[in-house]
Amino acid sequence: MKKAIKIATIGGGSSYTPELIEGFIKRYKELPISEIWLVDVEDGKEKLEIVGRLAQRMWDATPYNVKVITTLNRKEALKDADFVTTQFRVGLLDARIKDERIPLLHRMLGQETNGAGGMFKAFRTIPVMKEIVEDMKELCPDAWLINFTNPSGIITEAVIKHFGWKKCIGLCNVPVIAMMNEPKVIGKQVSELNYQFAGLNHFHWHKVFDEDGIEVTGQLIDHINEKNGGTPANIYLAEFSLELLHSMNLLPCGYHRYYYSEKEMLEHSIEEFEKGGTRAEQMKEVEASLFEIYKNPNLNVKPEELQKRGGAYYSEAACECISAIYNNKGIHMVVSTQNNGAIPCLNSDSIIEISCLISAKGATPIAWGKMGAFEKGHLQIMKAMEECTISAALLGDYGVALQAFTINPLIQKGGEAKKVLDELLVVHEKYLPQFKEKISELKKRGVESKDSIVADLMKNGH
Amino acid sequence: MKKAIKIATIGGGSSYTPELIEGFIKRYKELPISEIWLVDVEDGKEKLEIVGRLAQRMWDATPYNVKVITTLNRKEALKDADFVTTQFRVGLLDARIKDERIPLLHRMLGQETNGAGGMFKAFRTIPVMKEIVEDMKELCPDAWLINFTNPSGIITEAVIKHFGWKKCIGLCNVPVIAMMNEPKVIGKQVSELNYQFAGLNHFHWHKVFDEDGIEVTGQLIDHINEKNGGTPANIYLAEFSLELLHSMNLLPCGYHRYYYSEKEMLEHSIEEFEKGGTRAEQMKEVEASLFEIYKNPNLNVKPEELQKRGGAYYSEAACECISAIYNNKGIHMVVSTQNNGAIPCLNSDSIIEISCLISAKGATPIAWGKMGAFEKGHLQIMKAMEECTISAALLGDYGVALQAFTINPLIQKGGEAKKVLDELLVVHEKYLPQFKEKISELKKRGVESKDSIVADLMKNGH
Amino acid sequence: MKKAIKIATIGGGSSYTPELIEGFIKRYKELPISEIWLVDVEDGKEKLEIVGRLAQRMWDATPYNVKVITTLNRKEALKDADFVTTQFRVGLLDARIKDERIPLLHRMLGQETNGAGGMFKAFRTIPVMKEIVEDMKELCPDAWLINFTNPSGIITEAVIKHFGWKKCIGLCNVPVIAMMNEPKVIGKQVSELNYQFAGLNHFHWHKVFDEDGIEVTGQLIDHINEKNGGTPANIYLAEFSLELLHSMNLLPCGYHRYYYSEKEMLEHSIEEFEKGGTRAEQMKEVEASLFEIYKNPNLNVKPEELQKRGGAYYSEAACECISAIYNNKGIHMVVSTQNNGAIPCLNSDSIIEISCLISAKGATPIAWGKMGAFEKGHLQIMKAMEECTISAALLGDYGVALQAFTINPLIQKGGEAKKVLDELLVVHEKYLPQFKEKISELKKRGVESKDSIVADLMKNGH
Amino acid sequence: MKKAIKIATIGGGSSYTPELIEGFIKRYKELPISEIWLVDVEDGKEKLEIVGRLAQRMWDATPYNVKVITTLNRKEALKDADFVTTQFRVGLLDARIKDERIPLLHRMLGQETNGAGGMFKAFRTIPVMKEIVEDMKELCPDAWLINFTNPSGIITEAVIKHFGWKKCIGLCNVPVIAMMNEPKVIGKQVSELNYQFAGLNHFHWHKVFDEDGIEVTGQLIDHINEKNGGTPANIYLAEFSLELLHSMNLLPCGYHRYYYSEKEMLEHSIEEFEKGGTRAEQMKEVEASLFEIYKNPNLNVKPEELQKRGGAYYSEAACECISAIYNNKGIHMVVSTQNNGAIPCLNSDSIIEISCLISAKGATPIAWGKMGAFEKGHLQIMKAMEECTISAALLGDYGVALQAFTINPLIQKGGEAKKVLDELLVVHEKYLPQFKEKISELKKRGVESKDSIVADLMKNGH
Repeated sequence: MKKAIKIATIGGGSSYTPELIEGFIKRYKELPISEIWLVDVEDGKEKLEIVGRLAQRMWDATPYNVKVITTLNRKEALKDADFVTTQFRVGLLDARIKDERIPLLHRMLGQETNGAGGMFKAFRTIPVMKEIVEDMKELCPDAWLINFTNPSGIITEAVIKHFGWKKCIGLCNVPVIAMMNEPKVIGKQVSELNYQFAGLNHFHWHKVFDEDGIEVTGQLIDHINEKNGGTPANIYLAEFSLELLHSMNLLPCGYHRYYYSEKEMLEHSIEEFEKGGTRAEQMKEVEASLFEIYKNPNLNVKPEELQKRGGAYYSEAACECISAIYNNKGIHMVVSTQNNGAIPCLNSDSIIEISCLISAKGATPIAWGKMGAFEKGHLQIMKAMEECTISAALLGDYGVALQAFTINPLIQKGGEAKKVLDELLVVHEKYLPQFKEKISELKKRGVESKDSIVADLMKNGH
Repeated sequence: MKKAIKIATIGGGSSYTPELIEGFIKRYKELPISEIWLVDVEDGKEKLEIVGRLAQRMWDATPYNVKVITTLNRKEALKDADFVTTQFRVGLLDARIKDERIPLLHRMLGQETNGAGGMFKAFRTIPVMKEIVEDMKELCPDAWLINFTNPSGIITEAVIKHFGWKKCIGLCNVPVIAMMNEPKVIGKQVSELNYQFAGLNHFHWHKVFDEDGIEVTGQLIDHINEKNGGTPANIYLAEFSLELLHSMNLLPCGYHRYYYSEKEMLEHSIEEFEKGGTRAEQMKEVEASLFEIYKNPNLNVKPEELQKRGGAYYSEAACECISAIYNNKGIHMVVSTQNNGAIPCLNSDSIIEISCLISAKGATPIAWGKMGAFEKGHLQIMKAMEECTISAALLGDYGVALQAFTINPLIQKGGEAKKVLDELLVVHEKYLPQFKEKISELKKRGVESKDSIVADLMKNGH
Repeated sequence: MKKAIKIATIGGGSSYTPELIEGFIKRYKELPISEIWLVDVEDGKEKLEIVGRLAQRMWDATPYNVKVITTLNRKEALKDADFVTTQFRVGLLDARIKDERIPLLHRMLGQETNGAGGMFKAFRTIPVMKEIVEDMKELCPDAWLINFTNPSGIITEAVIKHFGWKKCIGLCNVPVIAMMNEPKVIGKQVSELNYQFAGLNHFHWHKVFDEDGIEVTGQLIDHINEKNGGTPANIYLAEFSLELLHSMNLLPCGYHRYYYSEKEMLEHSIEEFEKGGTRAEQMKEVEASLFEIYKNPNLNVKPEELQKRGGAYYSEAACECISAIYNNKGIHMVVSTQNNGAIPCLNSDSIIEISCLISAKGATPIAWGKMGAFEKGHLQIMKAMEECTISAALLGDYGVALQAFTINPLIQKGGEAKKVLDELLVVHEKYLPQFKEKISELKKRGVESKDSIVADLMKNGH
Repeated sequence: MKKAIKIATIGGGSSYTPELIEGFIKRYKELPISEIWLVDVEDGKEKLEIVGRLAQRMWDATPYNVKVITTLNRKEALKDADFVTTQFRVGLLDARIKDERIPLLHRMLGQETNGAGGMFKAFRTIPVMKEIVEDMKELCPDAWLINFTNPSGIITEAVIKHFGWKKCIGLCNVPVIAMMNEPKVIGKQVSELNYQFAGLNHFHWHKVFDEDGIEVTGQLIDHINEKNGGTPANIYLAEFSLELLHSMNLLPCGYHRYYYSEKEMLEHSIEEFEKGGTRAEQMKEVEASLFEIYKNPNLNVKPEELQKRGGAYYSEAACECISAIYNNKGIHMVVSTQNNGAIPCLNSDSIIEISCLISAKGATPIAWGKMGAFEKGHLQIMKAMEECTISAALLGDYGVALQAFTINPLIQKGGEAKKVLDELLVVHEKYLPQFKEKISELKKRGVESKDSIVADLMKNGH
């Protein structure tokens, strides 16, 4: 008989945690958890305790005997864990506010995953992830690491390829959202369709066949600009050119709007910013009110308000993935894992986001085959951007960081981009020890952010 | 509602046909066939009729209303077919006798799939397969072609890559046999294990994991030299070196004994030949007696004697594959299909034999990833041998045929090999129109087989 | 003894022709030409005759007996030619004016080689080049085609890969200019340095070693932003970030400023446009005055004024390349030719611009090896852009043209880019027969250019 | 001004050394050597001193002031060396005798470079080469390592790829011999032809063009079976099939006879062995008599008898290569160096033998491009064999050694091959510390060579 399961969740103080708990409760019969350890850092201690108490109340309202333990001691949590989930945010939402405000102030995209913001999130996260993996090697060498810290693909590549932890799977909710929404627009259910995805995190395409093997990709393309056409709700629906998509005969993911409709997405984000600040600032408010709700000692279920926060299906994906491994299900999921040739135009050891079978031995990718020239070229430059980002994060090398900025299609190259890079380095100093020397040089040269909100955050030690 | 299914079986006069019929009968409820057309050539007319009548009796003994039609007119059979299965043998068993006798007389391996015999089978089959595909383009452009004519991988590559028929799947029973036999040796059932296969037809490896994701490949290796260790019954059990297999940590297929224990296999086959002639000669006798049995007008089930003929599970695989397509099952099968990157050290458009998901859209390969140097080098030379064989078959180019012979690891290169090539060309003249000119030159130079049995066959027009 | 050489120059009416003639005169002793055929189209007839007469006067002023023949009959010129040079411009400078004005009016880069303009030049040129190659197959099947029609890399790829003419070499003066200027900045001569170039036309890098094998790339980087640092005079010197270049440790070509300093280059080109119109308009004036000079019946040398026109060393490169082939020189030149593995991250049959040995058998590339992630990703997207451009040009497929626009890093993607595409299609209607249907649809929808200069050109039938 | 050159020759006691000295004397004016250090091991001390004295006499007979120093202290010799040449033989000729006798006694090819013998030479040499490179990193970090220890390609791959010494070039005389002999057979001189080689050491092909760019490969093929057709004198001229070569349209190297005419080569080598023992035994005698000659205190030139020993042009190649580096010549030579894409079907970082430009920065390969299926498959299996050999040599892993044996096309696989492996391990115990454990196990199981000559050698401590 298999032993009871220990889960360790790094960044356990996240407002998402109740969703994860709900997912585990729903699956308890197939996934007999005994302990859930929620870990966080000193700065997140208050939230961790609030959410920890709610989580325990949620379990206590079920017939199952599951203990929730909160801790600031990561090693204690990792000890003998079976599954480690990572959902932490180095520097919390304040760091994201800087990631978004500074590019937008320079009229560049302030987007936290694939733009300048995403690269800085990687710069901050990768050194911490390295420490986590080192702890795991010592404390739970057989555990699976289920990562949903963004930029999920980049972090997963660092973990698998650079830190050598093979039992890692990166998750994202974008493919789930597409599979939840698209079938309806052509009057089908997801179970009637064969989906195949391939690409990189936030940069993948898919094709769809019906139960007779007839391709319905083209039909779905015709609905892609509709509200329920498959794009996540948090992405502005700048119109895709249907002629472009039909010539590819592939369905792009929602994030492709940033690439194929770059101008409209940039203009819209600047407009939104000028109206109401960044998304991170809005989320900070939402989060504050969520934690007020979580405090209620009578609350013992996931509150409805969480649903609206976005990030839907993330925890669903995580729980399902864990269960598929534990129960050797062999089901189809779209995750970040090692290529192994599934996309032949990328290296075999690169991390990609791809349709996989999830079973006891982890994720096995389903081969996609040759890409057309258009998708291939785009994919290759994005993977190169990811590689430069990881190298810069590991080496703390400013020149390589400049390479990452210069190769990112969402950044307009030149002196202004360099300014954005320099300001972001300086404002994130606390979380970028690897760039210490360069930051000190930049500060001597007087580099700083002139934005009052950023200045305020920094004054308050964030 | 889906329409009733029409099957066309090329080489329908084969002694295997009752097995195929049995497979269809077992699956009638999920696979509602209405007509099975058995096609053959003039030379096989008598057998065709015998087996056709048996097939009809088999159906008549069921509650299902299925018509079996025999014909020498391929076009009539192909018209509007949904699935076409190919199991023909150009030149019948007499051709195989020549394929096996001539190399053995020169003390080379007389083996009908990967040796000189297999190459000649390809030379004879490819031109006929080309005509079949041309007919299909005209008469049943949406049909699936399920090939189990050997050398299955080479023929499937010709069909997909050279003749452009994408809806083709090549089948082989070797992986099925491994999955049927191996689990027992470690006290497991196949449903408890995750199998992953990759390679080429008759030249693949696999690895196996249990339901906890623990690799059990090494355990299975320890049993591989046992009688029920996974090797097909028709392959001599020349010992594998366990130290070699453990250092690879992969399970080779039964045919790998020809490569890893070349000397023992060669010696054994010469010994067998000297004792009792070739396997083809034995099979010719077996077949004659089978057809005697088939003639019995009271026989309306697959006779037990067929089981012993070898080639077990072939028809099982074919029927299951057809049903998986028809019913969009998404199950795991090991078939020959387009690589699509699943084995990154081979071209994306090469045909490989690989673990696939079989669904309405056909076979989708599961990515295997990097091979070790040893497997990689072997695989690449075997694929090169296949490519040279196909080129020679298409072009009728003698120099390229020599390349195929020279690169085949089972042939000792040099003047003797050239003699084998020359004699085989001459004795197969009737079925090698593409080599016409060269054969005529060889005959002028007096090339012939001195073997009396071959001479007799030829005298009788075979 | 080798026979006397016949040269055919397509686009012979170009104002550059006297430079080519001068190059041939200088090399007459090693390259004994007997006839030079200058071919042009009806629209260029007047210029052709002016330049033809000048060319003949230039030869007559030498001791060599060389005949210059002008013709509108391409076939006559190609008949038995030994070398064909292509320097034509479909639609003449008026087409270039449209290529540059329309993007700039939409505040996009109006650049005739790698931006929207370059893609349209390819759309217009490729169908004509196809006809030329067809003529050559018939009339001069052993001739070398020396192409310097821009976009030179794209055109050369179409000729070699799509039209199957292997004996084609694409030329560009950018590497020549770098090798002419750079050595001086570190006090060296080109003969003392080992240069190695690799990449694509207008998108390559180089590294340099001195005669002791010591790399001097870093020293040259430090001077790259100087006026004589290696960038062609016609490219605005938007500053390269030296930190970026040192981290790559490669010297980019001048055109990389459009990519690495995109914002500054775009702003500068808009500024220039608002001040003085496009470069094409300026060149049209320069050209008119050049032809006035060429008319002078006493002129029998290349006039000084031509030097200032830009495009320096182009003809030098062409004549040297022809001589290197004719005389089997085995010298180093940087040309567009088939990759053959020299840049492993691109397909072996792609056309690249690379350091080669030029000998009687043509251009043999010198292997460069692995690129860093940054260069690799950039190179791969640019090659994908080239491939999409060629596909669109061959197929007249609007969706693929949109792909080409969307993947081009110099185009801001979205609705505005689509407008530029649509307008360019409409204004170039005369030279884009392959897009006929789409253009007619666009015109029905009222697409047109609102620019008065473009409108005037079109009114006058250009 | 460049400083005077210090040469260090590992294995300086070789009978070939006078040839090397002669090469340096001939080039003194372009290659101003001041010191030549000849290093050897204790076992070779006597020979080292004899040859050292001869070498000094040779220099003393010239006007040049060059010192020859002999030493058993490798570190002393390497200190500040500019060029290190390696020509040592671990275990001397006695080891080669075992390499050749044992396979031949089992009726397998006893060939010291590509067969079992070559693999064992690699097993013995690689650990020593590792120490040499470690010393060089410390003592002469800027030196060039010119390797002609066989198997030259394998050793060079270990040095560059595994030990990280990039400034290494591997030499072989086979291409030189081809270029020396072939041109005459078609009435040409080498300077009139363009040669291009590609492949692996002792497994390469070439194609040849004349000064008009016309390919003459086919003409040379027609003469390849002649005595002066390009094959080294020490290789038996088992006939190549011209039809095979014409269909490839490539000239194989002499060693390809072992692969394309395997049977004849094997039979011939067994016959020779039965008549007169191994080549190594013959060479041991030749060597003994050479050293008698070298002792003559009046001898001060390379004696004629050395010419006959074979290995012609080796030293010529080494001296020319060193001079080409020193003088930045940029000449064509065929050497073992990093692929860099020149042969696209092999990894970019593999070592290949290829036409290169040799200049101050070392060897730059000339891109060859795609291979045909036949050459490609063969090349890939040979590279895999090399990789397995190196892995086995580095790891001392018996399973991997079995892989190397099983993938080698010149070894008939199976139990007999395993016996050869086992016996060779046991008889070479002294030089195979990495296999210590396995050898001790084999000895316990009673593995030994029953050959009296091998037994004698071992009794005498060899």
